[in-house]
Amino acid sequence: MLEETLNRINTELREAPDKGLVADYIPELAKIDPNQFAMSVCLADGQQVSCGDFTTNFSMQSVSKAFTLAMALGRYGDGLWKRVGREPTSNAFNSVVDLELGGGKPRNPFVNAGAIVVTDALLSGRTPKDTLAEIVQFVRAAVGDGDIYINHDMARSENITGHRNWSLAHFLKSTDNLEHECELTLGTYFHQCSIELNCQQLARAGRFLAGLSGGHDMIANRHVRSINALMMTCGHYDGSGEFAYRVGFPGKSGVSGGILAIVPGVASVAVWAPGLNSFGNSQLGTLALERLSLAMSWSVFDTK
Amino acid sequence: MLEETLNRINTELREAPDKGLVADYIPELAKIDPNQFAMSVCLADGQQVSCGDFTTNFSMQSVSKAFTLAMALGRYGDGLWKRVGREPTSNAFNSVVDLELGGGKPRNPFVNAGAIVVTDALLSGRTPKDTLAEIVQFVRAAVGDGDIYINHDMARSENITGHRNWSLAHFLKSTDNLEHECELTLGTYFHQCSIELNCQQLARAGRFLAGLSGGHDMIANRHVRSINALMMTCGHYDGSGEFAYRVGFPGKSGVSGGILAIVPGVASVAVWAPGLNSFGNSQLGTLALERLSLAMSWSVFDTK
Amino acid sequence: MLEETLNRINTELREAPDKGLVADYIPELAKIDPNQFAMSVCLADGQQVSCGDFTTNFSMQSVSKAFTLAMALGRYGDGLWKRVGREPTSNAFNSVVDLELGGGKPRNPFVNAGAIVVTDALLSGRTPKDTLAEIVQFVRAAVGDGDIYINHDMARSENITGHRNWSLAHFLKSTDNLEHECELTLGTYFHQCSIELNCQQLARAGRFLAGLSGGHDMIANRHVRSINALMMTCGHYDGSGEFAYRVGFPGKSGVSGGILAIVPGVASVAVWAPGLNSFGNSQLGTLALERLSLAMSWSVFDTK
Amino acid sequence: MLEETLNRINTELREAPDKGLVADYIPELAKIDPNQFAMSVCLADGQQVSCGDFTTNFSMQSVSKAFTLAMALGRYGDGLWKRVGREPTSNAFNSVVDLELGGGKPRNPFVNAGAIVVTDALLSGRTPKDTLAEIVQFVRAAVGDGDIYINHDMARSENITGHRNWSLAHFLKSTDNLEHECELTLGTYFHQCSIELNCQQLARAGRFLAGLSGGHDMIANRHVRSINALMMTCGHYDGSGEFAYRVGFPGKSGVSGGILAIVPGVASVAVWAPGLNSFGNSQLGTLALERLSLAMSWSVFDTK
Repeated sequence: MLEETLNRINTELREAPDKGLVADYIPELAKIDPNQFAMSVCLADGQQVSCGDFTTNFSMQSVSKAFTLAMALGRYGDGLWKRVGREPTSNAFNSVVDLELGGGKPRNPFVNAGAIVVTDALLSGRTPKDTLAEIVQFVRAAVGDGDIYINHDMARSENITGHRNWSLAHFLKSTDNLEHECELTLGTYFHQCSIELNCQQLARAGRFLAGLSGGHDMIANRHVRSINALMMTCGHYDGSGEFAYRVGFPGKSGVSGGILAIVPGVASVAVWAPGLNSFGNSQLGTLALERLSLAMSWSVFDTK
Repeated sequence: MLEETLNRINTELREAPDKGLVADYIPELAKIDPNQFAMSVCLADGQQVSCGDFTTNFSMQSVSKAFTLAMALGRYGDGLWKRVGREPTSNAFNSVVDLELGGGKPRNPFVNAGAIVVTDALLSGRTPKDTLAEIVQFVRAAVGDGDIYINHDMARSENITGHRNWSLAHFLKSTDNLEHECELTLGTYFHQCSIELNCQQLARAGRFLAGLSGGHDMIANRHVRSINALMMTCGHYDGSGEFAYRVGFPGKSGVSGGILAIVPGVASVAVWAPGLNSFGNSQLGTLALERLSLAMSWSVFDTK
Repeated sequence: MLEETLNRINTELREAPDKGLVADYIPELAKIDPNQFAMSVCLADGQQVSCGDFTTNFSMQSVSKAFTLAMALGRYGDGLWKRVGREPTSNAFNSVVDLELGGGKPRNPFVNAGAIVVTDALLSGRTPKDTLAEIVQFVRAAVGDGDIYINHDMARSENITGHRNWSLAHFLKSTDNLEHECELTLGTYFHQCSIELNCQQLARAGRFLAGLSGGHDMIANRHVRSINALMMTCGHYDGSGEFAYRVGFPGKSGVSGGILAIVPGVASVAVWAPGLNSFGNSQLGTLALERLSLAMSWSVFDTK
Repeated sequence: MLEETLNRINTELREAPDKGLVADYIPELAKIDPNQFAMSVCLADGQQVSCGDFTTNFSMQSVSKAFTLAMALGRYGDGLWKRVGREPTSNAFNSVVDLELGGGKPRNPFVNAGAIVVTDALLSGRTPKDTLAEIVQFVRAAVGDGDIYINHDMARSENITGHRNWSLAHFLKSTDNLEHECELTLGTYFHQCSIELNCQQLARAGRFLAGLSGGHDMIANRHVRSINALMMTCGHYDGSGEFAYRVGFPGKSGVSGGILAIVPGVASVAVWAPGLNSFGNSQLGTLALERLSLAMSWSVFDTK
């Protein structure tokens, strides 16, 4: 039944008249064909079902924030929350307004400013190279597959054109909420965003957040719960309320059109469609998850 | 085990050094003894376990917003969202800032401005008196108990001193997002907030949102899911992220210190402790729900 | 030469293709014919030159704020600044945002919230009727003409439809920055805004702020200086910088299309044209003052 | 009488118990002894009167913004206003909030973001080195003295520690309101801020804005008027209303404690005292100008 559902969604959404807009502020992303779509689901029994372009690679972008947050919670525990908050925001993912009003403390670890702080925390006592190796290693372990690499052209492209992120990093530095030089932290951040994998791999990478076999023992249970809660309230920037309302389970989106979504105890779901909605989240990806949630009764808000 | 857990929480929290502060801007609330605590849980098997001052009445205040939202979704369905949004806010429950920035469309139905709009929608084609009778009847039906009344002194007190709500109502009127005169809508709203019940009754009133026996057929399943999603992302004002993170299931708080919390398919939980934290949510109530969630593994973000 | 200049401006501006938009949120103002224009100038030697519809009455609206401020400074001196600030704003004349961010202290006495506080201060120890009599008397004395009255239909119209002002008043009340009931203060405020005079009278009314003969001894010199400074930085709401830049001397605008402008020591200028620009200031009025300033070298920023 | 007044102010203010706080976010400024004070006045008849430490050098910092604005108006005229606004702000001199809300258009040329845009405009078609040479040359010409140089240590110090300015520059770049690379524009900006002169020289440098002999022909009269208007409404950041109210004539402050103030047609006044008030303007400098204005009746809002 899951297979039929995925195939139906794949067929329906490829016909969708409005596929959203590919992000154009990162040149490497602007090149990507918006007529691509993939979805993959890992279940508790170890089964994995996929549809569409599920072997095509894309860069993780902000989906990587869920993984670096997992690493940072493992290393710092609740100490991390001294530097970053846990509240949703009404402003955009790259907003400086929240940062200024919050005195340099980002609202949550999933807006860009918050994720930069998390990466800065991971850098503590390590070189950027070692930190990146650790991050890639963490993602590989989560996927259970060594065939995952950083796209260095993408990282370079973001480094040159990512002026809003530079603005955020220097702001954080000016409020003493960045331990390292902006160049070091942002360099690492841009590379982490440029980790490439395919939709099938991403679904597998999320198993530890869904508590599925093959995903255990990456981090403590209480951190899993924390990350899922944050993905629910903050995972889609200022469109998080809408996503929770429509989809009903936690997720983290990225500007390349990928979304990792978690049905705790039940499934890890990855979807990829490059066109974005006005909040910067995958337009078709959100729609696909909404239909999947409805078809499988996967909303955590459902009473069954 | 639930009984033991409740008793332990009751004992522990009565010793808590910081019980929060009773709301003082409504004179009738300022009089209330902060050294009170009650908790009550309805389970799927029809069992109900309670502890503390569970037969003492208190006014619903903003907890009533969950019930009027249920009624309005039943009447208008998705048409309601033309007048009110579904996103969390970084501003306080009584903020006018969001309203001005949003051109008179409240961020969500659980901030005061949004709840006033919902009440205004319920008034359409009815007198305030009939509307209030419907609301009280809805709550009684949810509880399964006719012994629930409006405290008219409380309503009068809020009418006279609730200048922030008057400010919100006139703002809404100035942007044509209020159908009725401010006096009519606010008069109804203040009375709805003044519906009194005890903690045991409140837990029962939430059964329809948890899908428990005795609570079925109040509203359509898809509206249940919607209300739970909104209680998760917006139920505790600008402290909603914190509540989701710590407690892990949906809830709606009120300024009288009550919280109704829902574990979908599992339990309806009511807690009451009059002292508030800085967000205006019950200080001990939040703590109690956090401990209950941990003890019973009730977080929807938990993978079990 | 002044007469020629005024006649030229009158002729030119009546041909202007864009006359702005008449305020439509007050029904009594929406009725007014936008094809009217008047200008009048009082000089130091007692001479007065006028052009256009200078005997047609219009309501003072926010121009009255300069007169109530003068009265309040006379009564309270610098004590007034405990309740209202002296800084420009980037928000609109009727914004609640500033008020919430400022904890209930309006940015300056010329935004609506600030003017409401000033009127509230004038009410202290007096009835609304006596206070209004005092205000009308003050304006009559400034003009040197007893033929000035309140338009009660206008006041009633604003009382019923002025929801943004009601929103501001209740907000002020909720922060304890309003001594009287909203009904009393706003009732007085709406009547003060409804004082009617013609352009010739308004120019005469401004003589005490320009230090011209016929205008002396209304208030202390240091208060004249203060009011002029505030009219320069705050007299045109969030369009004050633009007005200072283009016109170069202090002024106070009203939503009925009147502007009172002061060239200290030199001239008191009144202009009236009902169409408004996007800031809510008279479109042609601003243009007329800009041309007058240029023709007469009246900018205080000019080195001659 | 001017000499006596200056001496009295010098004596009085050196005794002032609260001298404000020296800026500590630029290491080179943090070193400066706060117990210094100087004042100098150029009059229409060519006379110059000074008191205190008027031969001690200090860096111009934001006072330089008046000079680069003069140069940019000369080169671009009103075309400059496509890139920068003319309105006061309620936010701090280094705020990013205004910039984000304004879509990357700074509120005015005297907040940091606006001044960075002005410098960027001056760089068009020139190297940073040539641009800096032009700016220094312009200041020298205004002073009538070749003995004015850039403090390169200061510039280097600001380049390394000025993260808020880097944040602003990258934000501007992200909205396409910066023509050159951030490094080029900010490098030039930091050097322009590091131009050093003494109080006597600064007073002379302002003569062209006051229309005094020795200062003519630097720029067109209409640009003089424009700059003075902007210094009045925006010259002291979010403390501009207060400055206009208390002092009554235009001025531009800098974080090193210098203020250049202009009495159009009458005097160019420079004051220097390193301690700052909460808005980042010289504490004693503002006080000194207030007393001078009162003693000499120099307020442009005064009717004499």
